[in-house]
Amino acid sequence: MDGRRSEETAGRQKVADRVGGAVDRAVEQEVERQLSILRRGVVEIIPEDGLRSKLTESVTSGRPLRVKLGLDPSAPDVHLGHTVVLQKLRQFQELGHIVQLVIGDFTGRIGDPTGKSETRRQLSEEEVKANAETYVRQFGKVLDMSRVELSYNSTWLAPLTFAEVIQLAAKTTVARMLERDDFQKRYAAGQPISLHEFFYPLMQGYDSVALTSDIELGGTDQTFNLLMGRELMRDYGLPQQVVMTMPLLEGLDGARKMSKSLGNYIGIDEPPEEMYGKVMSLPDALMIRYYTLVTDLSEAEVQAIEADLASGALHPRDAKMRLARRIVTMYHGAPSAERAERHFRTVFQEGKLPEDIEVRSIPAALAAGGTIGVLTLLSALGLVPSNSEARRMVEQGAVRIDEVRIDDPKARVELRPGMVVRVGKRHIVRVALGDDDGSSDRVR
Amino acid sequence: MDGRRSEETAGRQKVADRVGGAVDRAVEQEVERQLSILRRGVVEIIPEDGLRSKLTESVTSGRPLRVKLGLDPSAPDVHLGHTVVLQKLRQFQELGHIVQLVIGDFTGRIGDPTGKSETRRQLSEEEVKANAETYVRQFGKVLDMSRVELSYNSTWLAPLTFAEVIQLAAKTTVARMLERDDFQKRYAAGQPISLHEFFYPLMQGYDSVALTSDIELGGTDQTFNLLMGRELMRDYGLPQQVVMTMPLLEGLDGARKMSKSLGNYIGIDEPPEEMYGKVMSLPDALMIRYYTLVTDLSEAEVQAIEADLASGALHPRDAKMRLARRIVTMYHGAPSAERAERHFRTVFQEGKLPEDIEVRSIPAALAAGGTIGVLTLLSALGLVPSNSEARRMVEQGAVRIDEVRIDDPKARVELRPGMVVRVGKRHIVRVALGDDDGSSDRVR
Repeated sequence: MDGRRSEETAGRQKVADRVGGAVDRAVEQEVERQLSILRRGVVEIIPEDGLRSKLTESVTSGRPLRVKLGLDPSAPDVHLGHTVVLQKLRQFQELGHIVQLVIGDFTGRIGDPTGKSETRRQLSEEEVKANAETYVRQFGKVLDMSRVELSYNSTWLAPLTFAEVIQLAAKTTVARMLERDDFQKRYAAGQPISLHEFFYPLMQGYDSVALTSDIELGGTDQTFNLLMGRELMRDYGLPQQVVMTMPLLEGLDGARKMSKSLGNYIGIDEPPEEMYGKVMSLPDALMIRYYTLVTDLSEAEVQAIEADLASGALHPRDAKMRLARRIVTMYHGAPSAERAERHFRTVFQEGKLPEDIEVRSIPAALAAGGTIGVLTLLSALGLVPSNSEARRMVEQGAVRIDEVRIDDPKARVELRPGMVVRVGKRHIVRVALGDDDGSSDRVR
Repeated sequence: MDGRRSEETAGRQKVADRVGGAVDRAVEQEVERQLSILRRGVVEIIPEDGLRSKLTESVTSGRPLRVKLGLDPSAPDVHLGHTVVLQKLRQFQELGHIVQLVIGDFTGRIGDPTGKSETRRQLSEEEVKANAETYVRQFGKVLDMSRVELSYNSTWLAPLTFAEVIQLAAKTTVARMLERDDFQKRYAAGQPISLHEFFYPLMQGYDSVALTSDIELGGTDQTFNLLMGRELMRDYGLPQQVVMTMPLLEGLDGARKMSKSLGNYIGIDEPPEEMYGKVMSLPDALMIRYYTLVTDLSEAEVQAIEADLASGALHPRDAKMRLARRIVTMYHGAPSAERAERHFRTVFQEGKLPEDIEVRSIPAALAAGGTIGVLTLLSALGLVPSNSEARRMVEQGAVRIDEVRIDDPKARVELRPGMVVRVGKRHIVRVALGDDDGSSDRVR
């Protein structure tokens, strides 16, 4: 009996091993599949094998990973630079994981206590809320917002007592903080670092503690802050998040990081024609980088384009138009992208005026005796932000009225309804003489 | 009429001027009087003319100055080193000013969050309270406790929110903190500085903000922290406190700062004989310093002693006995001081046994066959902290039984009631054979 029983047991064990082995292989395959997608375009995964472990855990247990992204509530205008990280988050979502968006409202509500930084203006509760809504609306163009957990870090930061803040501060050292690149440079250069600035990385790190995140994403310029999350999670006895950094996307100048303040950006809220035109102004050398980082094309598709470009089968201009159309499609849909492309062909390639030109009314009263100063005209149409900018545009030869260049800032022009005023290549309006309320309308 | 009136006015003005001038002179004299007392023994007054301004303000308005001293609640044993500052506070009191004692219970309650420092052990509320009471009892020997405002800094620090802590931290810079001598050295040496340590000076400074102190006192090693109070008061829009630093008193070794951990201290709670003996063990070179910093003798009295020493009219030994007697009188009263002096003369100068020797019982059972090992005897009498220390004492020739030196650690001695056991010069007990409860009694 004992002999038979142990034989039976051994048999069962073999079956279990076989089944277990099959399961292990299936898990392994699924992990490899996800890894191959998630690794694409990533600069660094810390620790290197961390993502594989987290994925294995998730696939085995069926528990989705929580993938965190922290957001500065003071700058809600999303541009393509931001979408590099958003695309990666989208991939996580498509693989069944959950995105944690954290609005850093606690720091936003404090602002810069020294009053020195203009970018760290103190925000009201309403502004924070409005900015967060702007984020959500814009992010909805990339992410599935139904699989996003949105939170505000004031929820857990504001109630911390001084004693708890001391406990938090005790978890790091001055030397560790001064390792952060910008702190190091400022300290070495004798530029003041206000002590409270050391708390920003700590707060961002504490967000991960509060949310028990599995992964945190960010640009390569965020590496230090993301690692702070790992360190704090360890100190608070939690499993450490894995850090994934994404490249910083170069802006339209092809050199510097895309940013609003440098003016080299493509906002995802910009009109289709504007977006299309801006993509077309990119240096050729950046095309594949944009294909990889900001479109939703698969790796194979991008490689095919790269090969065709290399062999000469695909003209760079055509590749760029495909890129532009793809990007506009992502944010405005296929019909708008097609229209933007047609507009581009008409205006830039065939030199014609586009079919649909925005009509803007200006008060008839502005025309004294039927003529108007060119600078006043540009301002009244909202084509320039200031009179001095208007003068600069005229002097640069960038201003045309009915396709005739005006290069004298003192020129007076006859004011006729239907006249077409153009500044540079892309800003074109048709003049209507309206009432004095300055309302505008778009005609097709 | 107008002429007479203006004559009258002019006359009144003259009287007023005369009175005003007299008042000004009286104020000036009083300020000078206080200054001459308060400046004595002080290392630094920051800013240099600050004390004069504060005193002038006080004498003119009749408002007493608030003079702050911060206390670490973890080390309530007060020694002569501490009394250097206390004597100065006492002088302020005698001139009509008010002493603010601040128990730093907030930091004491936190302890060292990193768990690395043994001196920053976390204290319970009861311990903080007990330690504060110990302070108050001991300080009462120097200060008039009815003119002391005692407070606990947790009162204003504990309720600070994270946002307020950030505001506080924003008032200083990392570079400013790293100017503090010990931080600078540790940073340069690559030794970790936990970030929360930067908060200790800030908290101490904030105490001055909360208490709107006029003056803060401390040892020269506190200069940085005291100045932080000035800086924060300015940032919070308050009149800045004046900082006064007192010298650090050298300990019995004549070299290093008096401190409990170095064992070179004279506690103000020590028995009269112990205190007297310790003062007598001071190097001669420190005598005048001790006269100046820890006694309540006037400057003139100290100068007279110094002159007599220089001329040879006063023997150094006599000067030191006067110092010892003065110090013991301050903490135990004149009769105890006289007794301590007699004890000292008997034992040390005449080589006799003192009149009153403490009797300590040891269990008769310890004596096997009527004899006992010398090391066991010393331990049983509580004359040595350990067996190895007992061995060291015997080997050094410091142990006498009935005035016969015992220098063999293996020696066995006959155990007789009434025998006198002596370790070094000052530790003498008479043996009683008691029950096994080891109780002791003092006879006169």
